Amino acid sequence: MYSYDHKIRVRYGETDKMGVVYHGCYPLYYEEARTEMLRSIGISYLELEQRSIMMPVTEMHVKYIAPAYYDDLLTVRVSLRQPPGVRIVFHYQIFNQNNQLLNEAELTLVFVNEATRRPCRLPQALADVLAPYFDK
Amino acid sequence: MYSYDHKIRVRYGETDKMGVVYHGCYPLYYEEARTEMLRSIGISYLELEQRSIMMPVTEMHVKYIAPAYYDDLLTVRVSLRQPPGVRIVFHYQIFNQNNQLLNEAELTLVFVNEATRRPCRLPQALADVLAPYFDK
Amino acid sequence: MYSYDHKIRVRYGETDKMGVVYHGCYPLYYEEARTEMLRSIGISYLELEQRSIMMPVTEMHVKYIAPAYYDDLLTVRVSLRQPPGVRIVFHYQIFNQNNQLLNEAELTLVFVNEATRRPCRLPQALADVLAPYFDK
Amino acid sequence: MYSYDHKIRVRYGETDKMGVVYHGCYPLYYEEARTEMLRSIGISYLELEQRSIMMPVTEMHVKYIAPAYYDDLLTVRVSLRQPPGVRIVFHYQIFNQNNQLLNEAELTLVFVNEATRRPCRLPQALADVLAPYFDK
Repeated sequence: MYSYDHKIRVRYGETDKMGVVYHGCYPLYYEEARTEMLRSIGISYLELEQRSIMMPVTEMHVKYIAPAYYDDLLTVRVSLRQPPGVRIVFHYQIFNQNNQLLNEAELTLVFVNEATRRPCRLPQALADVLAPYFDK
Repeated sequence: MYSYDHKIRVRYGETDKMGVVYHGCYPLYYEEARTEMLRSIGISYLELEQRSIMMPVTEMHVKYIAPAYYDDLLTVRVSLRQPPGVRIVFHYQIFNQNNQLLNEAELTLVFVNEATRRPCRLPQALADVLAPYFDK
Repeated sequence: MYSYDHKIRVRYGETDKMGVVYHGCYPLYYEEARTEMLRSIGISYLELEQRSIMMPVTEMHVKYIAPAYYDDLLTVRVSLRQPPGVRIVFHYQIFNQNNQLLNEAELTLVFVNEATRRPCRLPQALADVLAPYFDK
Repeated sequence: MYSYDHKIRVRYGETDKMGVVYHGCYPLYYEEARTEMLRSIGISYLELEQRSIMMPVTEMHVKYIAPAYYDDLLTVRVSLRQPPGVRIVFHYQIFNQNNQLLNEAELTLVFVNEATRRPCRLPQALADVLAPYFDK
């Protein structure tokens, strides 16, 4: 298992008239956190794309527990519980600055070859850096 | 069961560099479609709020099957399969103009009293207009 | 001069905690309105792009006069006051359902050749359909 | 004059099918930068609101010079050139990691009393911390 904490400050424009972060804004937080998680192990998502590998999201499941408010400093905890194959599953927990759990999510992405638009195996570089975290 | 079809045209700003609608934009489509579905049976979500009833999303589950593209004219099919209680579950299917299924989703919202911020029963007016669709 | 009115319903997610449409959401409304204006004269922006002509925004000037609220049914009036050349300038006025003027804007876009990423002349088809509106 | 540099990493969802940051996403960057600028001098925008002072944007003028790309690490330079009164004008320049100027903007906000929704003078605390930067 590999886990990474990333901090995000809530923007005003991400709130709605209920006074809380709009439920539809969290996918952007999840995206930012997994990009930084990959960067933390030396993988640039941008470079993956430049090598013609795309990672579209195929499934997203979010449970909203408590709201986030404007200017909250959120901790987005993103973790990999299984070594990725054709798919990679990111688990999320978001906490506010009082360490209150706000929501949990699970996003599944697939590795896709840009040219063929068909699923492909994960890049070897990514498999290599992740391997130590999933050894028995 | 009550089902309603609502059309949405994809905006340029809703696409991402992959050339398709960003996965995080669909919650806005789901929101717009359920508002119009409620309006179609004479319920204004705005008026619910003005009577101090809020409907936060507590769970969202999306399966992305195929991408939507800029300027696509989407049909968002939103349906209620069970009569709502404290919760209301909206089921979604989005089709493009070629009738291809792009994604499916299920969103759960709860009725909340604005003052107490506690769950409450659904408004009687909403229960009444929906009743005929769920009678045996 | 050519002028076109397009209706847009405000989404919940487009409001912010002030209870009004976030100022940063209007560019999406302007975009949707000019696309529909072009469609009204037989020009598809999507087809322009497919013929390798892009139209990036180079300048945007907005004056916010009054707020828009959730569920407002806005009229976005978009007009061309001058025949386009390498640039095309769209003028906007947004009104709510009470005919109150909410904001005014001016957006400048340039025609760009996708391959060279250099400015280019406007497509002849567009020049032709617009010509009658600017003849003395 | 007071000037502040704030770094923002471009999110995937902020790009559009042109492969660049959508022009309508910059207002969020400007907002984040001015919040951090105020924080840098000890002013919390959140606290201003809690003391019933709102700061709606009344004018926005952006000149787009060059595009930003996914994963760019932008520097948003925000500066105050005049001491604020009823209005406060923020000037912006955004640079990418190669120090290339991407766009310039000017946003005017007004101080508004939340209860009356009328313009009001700027908070004394803000006037006091800014005063040294504008003394002759």
